[in-house]
Amino acid sequence: MLNRLGKQTIVFKNKPRVISHYSVVGPKEGNGNFGKFFHKILKDDLFGEKSYEAAESKMLMLAITEAIKVSGIPTDEIDALFAGDLMNQITSSSFAARSLKLPYLGLFGACSTMAESLIMGACHVDGGFARYAACATGSHFSSAEKQFRYPLELGTQRPPCSQWTVTGTGCTILGNADMGITVDSATIGKVVDWNITDANNMGAAMAPAAADTLKAHLEDTGRKLADYDLILTGDLGKLGSEILIDLMEYNGYHLGTNYNDCGQMIFSNTQKTFMGGSGCGCGASILNSYVFDRMEEHKLNNVLFIATGALMSSLSSQQGNSIPSIAHAVSFNIGGK
Amino acid sequence: MLNRLGKQTIVFKNKPRVISHYSVVGPKEGNGNFGKFFHKILKDDLFGEKSYEAAESKMLMLAITEAIKVSGIPTDEIDALFAGDLMNQITSSSFAARSLKLPYLGLFGACSTMAESLIMGACHVDGGFARYAACATGSHFSSAEKQFRYPLELGTQRPPCSQWTVTGTGCTILGNADMGITVDSATIGKVVDWNITDANNMGAAMAPAAADTLKAHLEDTGRKLADYDLILTGDLGKLGSEILIDLMEYNGYHLGTNYNDCGQMIFSNTQKTFMGGSGCGCGASILNSYVFDRMEEHKLNNVLFIATGALMSSLSSQQGNSIPSIAHAVSFNIGGK
Repeated sequence: MLNRLGKQTIVFKNKPRVISHYSVVGPKEGNGNFGKFFHKILKDDLFGEKSYEAAESKMLMLAITEAIKVSGIPTDEIDALFAGDLMNQITSSSFAARSLKLPYLGLFGACSTMAESLIMGACHVDGGFARYAACATGSHFSSAEKQFRYPLELGTQRPPCSQWTVTGTGCTILGNADMGITVDSATIGKVVDWNITDANNMGAAMAPAAADTLKAHLEDTGRKLADYDLILTGDLGKLGSEILIDLMEYNGYHLGTNYNDCGQMIFSNTQKTFMGGSGCGCGASILNSYVFDRMEEHKLNNVLFIATGALMSSLSSQQGNSIPSIAHAVSFNIGGK
Repeated sequence: MLNRLGKQTIVFKNKPRVISHYSVVGPKEGNGNFGKFFHKILKDDLFGEKSYEAAESKMLMLAITEAIKVSGIPTDEIDALFAGDLMNQITSSSFAARSLKLPYLGLFGACSTMAESLIMGACHVDGGFARYAACATGSHFSSAEKQFRYPLELGTQRPPCSQWTVTGTGCTILGNADMGITVDSATIGKVVDWNITDANNMGAAMAPAAADTLKAHLEDTGRKLADYDLILTGDLGKLGSEILIDLMEYNGYHLGTNYNDCGQMIFSNTQKTFMGGSGCGCGASILNSYVFDRMEEHKLNNVLFIATGALMSSLSSQQGNSIPSIAHAVSFNIGGK
């Protein structure tokens, strides 16, 4: 029995569901457009820790423990934690997993990790390999900035096409249940590289990957863009979203008012983030707050979430390589379709 | 239908099988104890590339493409590539995935990645989410040394408890078939940290994780150590293996002559690697050559492969953190049990 459609898409026949979800963000994100939707807004992005890396890990742990608490499921029935982040060797996730004492499978998909963890979690629940799965990711502006770009203390000027890494984490608990948001299908992305070498222009690097996966999803499932109330990319930002719209137009698909991008949405125009937000935490925090909340209220019934990731490292950029990118898509619905 | 046993173990009811396997190693590994078993031995560990990172990625790509070629399966029926490596942001895997144009899910489990990729691949094949899955990982001495320790040019003296990162890659193609090695079960590890802070003593850091997972596997499945012809850890090295034997003894399990460790086995005593080999490529290259070959010849019928990973980064060590570790176990059998 093959649970696949077309070349890249998985169909979940046992309909794993979103049992609970939780989001944690930093103060700047709390002051942005989605402040009222996030579950926990930190007053200080060091979160009582001595380093930004430790703060990022603590935020991730908080999102996971709170999501488990909200689910009402005993922690020892969470059969697997799928998590990853942007830090070298995904230390934020591994340190969180150390405290949580859950069976742990570490992922790296850069900013596509929320979708990747949901794909893994949904496969494990759907296939009966896990009763419940925790799917989580997050990012932190300060830890990402120092690792990928410049020391914060330098006060380096940000180029106009840059995005602001979101300080935020999100966790979804998946499992079998009679009611709630269903994970319907997932389209696994391929690595796409259009030779962008500017690590300050992630949107342009990732947009072709988003277009590739969205096109594959529509072809594999036979669906139309209009079948979704919301098609939401993870963190293309303003420029990347415009490029995606152009690329899809070129492929004969018109992305209309049911399309938006978490990077474009998360900050207000007065927050000086140029092209908007980025980072694993961008899509993760919005999906696990606003999007799932609106679905549970039936204001959104069919959502396609496409998280995009730029798969370079500081070293690969220094060695002159272009930025390989990927996008994974997960479709959700509620109340039958 | 829950395909689980006990707390951490998955049982594969549809019996995914090893369709093909391939290993690529560097010249030093070729001169070691397993030289005659590896499929491809490089003459030069730069492999015609300008950087060790590019060489590592090319080796990984070679293992994957050759494993696919040996399998006889058309590349477009490989529905997912599960791969990861030690490089920051797993660039070796992502750059390989870029060339291969396969649906790609990136993993990070440090040196546990071969087992992690097999778990993911087996779940996808068993659950009908993929027809065939490619599971791969690798490491390179020179890229790992410069990233985690010191520039090679410094000629830093190696401490006696250190291990030598293996330059090697391995790939397994999993799928449904009537004959061949079966992936029988998998035990997902938890992160274990016994407060080792010496990044030159990975064996000691990882041994408690190996003990934890092996104990969980035996408890979950009700099996005995003697049920396996071979219990093989990934890269504990000589010291780590001795610690594992002690820890298991303490828990009431006597690891006998059916236990060995890839790190301990791979190099000869004259090769001056102190505690032996390490790195994702250590377990990956031996599993995908010697072990699967011996199983196909029915010289080994039941094998438990436990890959161990140290989940720290250079930064986490510099910030004074101890080394969280993990081990994942996968059991294989052939010819019924």
